[in-house]
Amino acid sequence: MTPERLTAFTDGVVAILITILVLELKPPTGDHLSDILDLKGRLLAYLLSFVFIAIYWNNHHHLLRLVRRIDGRVLWANMLLLFCLSLTPLATAWLGETGVKNGPVAAYAIVLLGCGLAYTLLTLALLALHDSESALHQAIGNDRKGKLSLVCYLLALVLSFVEPWISVALFVFVALIWFVPDRRVTRTLVATRELR
Amino acid sequence: MTPERLTAFTDGVVAILITILVLELKPPTGDHLSDILDLKGRLLAYLLSFVFIAIYWNNHHHLLRLVRRIDGRVLWANMLLLFCLSLTPLATAWLGETGVKNGPVAAYAIVLLGCGLAYTLLTLALLALHDSESALHQAIGNDRKGKLSLVCYLLALVLSFVEPWISVALFVFVALIWFVPDRRVTRTLVATRELR
Amino acid sequence: MTPERLTAFTDGVVAILITILVLELKPPTGDHLSDILDLKGRLLAYLLSFVFIAIYWNNHHHLLRLVRRIDGRVLWANMLLLFCLSLTPLATAWLGETGVKNGPVAAYAIVLLGCGLAYTLLTLALLALHDSESALHQAIGNDRKGKLSLVCYLLALVLSFVEPWISVALFVFVALIWFVPDRRVTRTLVATRELR
Amino acid sequence: MTPERLTAFTDGVVAILITILVLELKPPTGDHLSDILDLKGRLLAYLLSFVFIAIYWNNHHHLLRLVRRIDGRVLWANMLLLFCLSLTPLATAWLGETGVKNGPVAAYAIVLLGCGLAYTLLTLALLALHDSESALHQAIGNDRKGKLSLVCYLLALVLSFVEPWISVALFVFVALIWFVPDRRVTRTLVATRELR
Repeated sequence: MTPERLTAFTDGVVAILITILVLELKPPTGDHLSDILDLKGRLLAYLLSFVFIAIYWNNHHHLLRLVRRIDGRVLWANMLLLFCLSLTPLATAWLGETGVKNGPVAAYAIVLLGCGLAYTLLTLALLALHDSESALHQAIGNDRKGKLSLVCYLLALVLSFVEPWISVALFVFVALIWFVPDRRVTRTLVATRELR
Repeated sequence: MTPERLTAFTDGVVAILITILVLELKPPTGDHLSDILDLKGRLLAYLLSFVFIAIYWNNHHHLLRLVRRIDGRVLWANMLLLFCLSLTPLATAWLGETGVKNGPVAAYAIVLLGCGLAYTLLTLALLALHDSESALHQAIGNDRKGKLSLVCYLLALVLSFVEPWISVALFVFVALIWFVPDRRVTRTLVATRELR
Repeated sequence: MTPERLTAFTDGVVAILITILVLELKPPTGDHLSDILDLKGRLLAYLLSFVFIAIYWNNHHHLLRLVRRIDGRVLWANMLLLFCLSLTPLATAWLGETGVKNGPVAAYAIVLLGCGLAYTLLTLALLALHDSESALHQAIGNDRKGKLSLVCYLLALVLSFVEPWISVALFVFVALIWFVPDRRVTRTLVATRELR
Repeated sequence: MTPERLTAFTDGVVAILITILVLELKPPTGDHLSDILDLKGRLLAYLLSFVFIAIYWNNHHHLLRLVRRIDGRVLWANMLLLFCLSLTPLATAWLGETGVKNGPVAAYAIVLLGCGLAYTLLTLALLALHDSESALHQAIGNDRKGKLSLVCYLLALVLSFVEPWISVALFVFVALIWFVPDRRVTRTLVATRELR
């Protein structure tokens, strides 16, 4: 098992997940353009999940580029990440169907929390395999963004029982801070390359 | 993130989208061959969308071949294109279900317009990364076909409220002008290769 | 556009098609093992289509290995093949639902005939691009198996209106003659390699 | 046909299968978090199947890494494995729907038995192509784990008519013994590499 193959398999699963999300969207019953507003909630939920999966794919790719070796622990941490990501279409469908209510928002937060934890486990498993002078260690650093996301997901989960709209605002906030691919990884990579 | 990986991921998503379209097609209820005529509208909508996605895949591939570097802006322009393309199955299902009516035809035009705009953004983001002497700049040129397509989609959107069949004719027209892969890109590529 | 990319995209679409077939299979309503017999017709239709798509994938791969260059005609012949193959899940679902009746069997024959014709067009477009001394020309030869298959599909279409079971027997016959990957292509390839 | 292409196609199909499993999961009808407990059975069935497919993918990858040549027999043994794996979503859906009952548990055992037998056939076909001194032969050895799994699946099938929960316990047991990727293959690979 090489890092390349792990990346290729992950890419395959993510490409399918991001596309399967769209299967939840059924055409409206009428034939007027305004009938599409019936899908408003579902379309927004779809957009949110699309952005989240795109961000994970993007960061996963930047992470794996710095990886020199993997082991069974990395493999299963990655599988756990894929498993959690694969629950996104279900959470999205529920959120799109019922709208911003306690249950589906809490479920959405749980799925994102699962993805975040799995990604953290993956990062830790990879760091353990590379020495502290490696490009990977320098690029990850103390991973402030990752920790902040986990805190936000947890907050969103708790607050979903009080006011689910705050949780949705937290989801959007996390999406925004990750929107730009992790600059630290990019910067380190360019630097390493130039040194060659 | 290399251009190769971006292409591979895009290929994956497009391959899935083009196949997911077929899931909208349900077998007819009877068991006579003529019963398949019940699916006539859906089959034609499927054919139209299949051709559109095939054209996008084809042009995307020709475009990416000339690309030497990408950045975050390119990445997200590409994600926007994939997002717009991913709405095709929904628009196709609606069109196939209700037939050539105002609402679904307008929605179809909006989705195509979104794809066209995202593709234009992608092209601009790529041009900004390459100097004006590059093969990419020479191949894209003033992109007359791209601009014409955008005008046609906009016209189709407006006219869908007057006579949706004219919009469908415009869709077919755009498909026909793109059917042949962009000769300029192909020509430049061959030339660049011969010089090596 | 290189032959490698065309192959990769085709592989992607075929991998998805072969898997999407299984979505037609819904679990039986009861909870006894014998209830699975309710799915008998669907399972057999699934098996037949799985074998057909596997054969096309296999032969496509053997064919593309000998290809040195492709053009727009090859690309669109390949897209036509993918389009015809993509109708397999629909034809399979109809056949599985109604059983061996005139309509679905004729539709199945039409889809297979379309695939066969598209594959022939692809072969001809490729032959036109390679000179008559090429490994491709020697490997394809007069393509007896391909012509025989087309005749069988046509016969199956006609006979489906008389006795659909004969058509099914013809489908199985064609599957059997293609089951072994085309020996001629394999042989030529090995020979060409040894000469290097 | 090279081992690389066979692996890539298999990866594609497996990536799709593992993702298609999730399509069986429909959002609950209510909007309370506790409503997700309605999906408890389906979620557990999904988790079990996800782990099984992940294990097959993982072992398949380790196996193919040691392969130097393949033939038609290998190809079709691999196709048989993919066919059996492709029935997993159906068996999972039935199990998730009816819960731990005779019928679905027996069907699940049959599908796993089919996968196990197909994998054994694939291994034997590969061993026949490589001489007994090869890395493949040394890595596979007497394949105790493989034989034990087949016995467990068979036992699970028989016992599903007595007490289906014992069968489920056997499924979990087999999943656990395969959870760690085959150490023998990994060890041999590293050794072979170091000698270079």
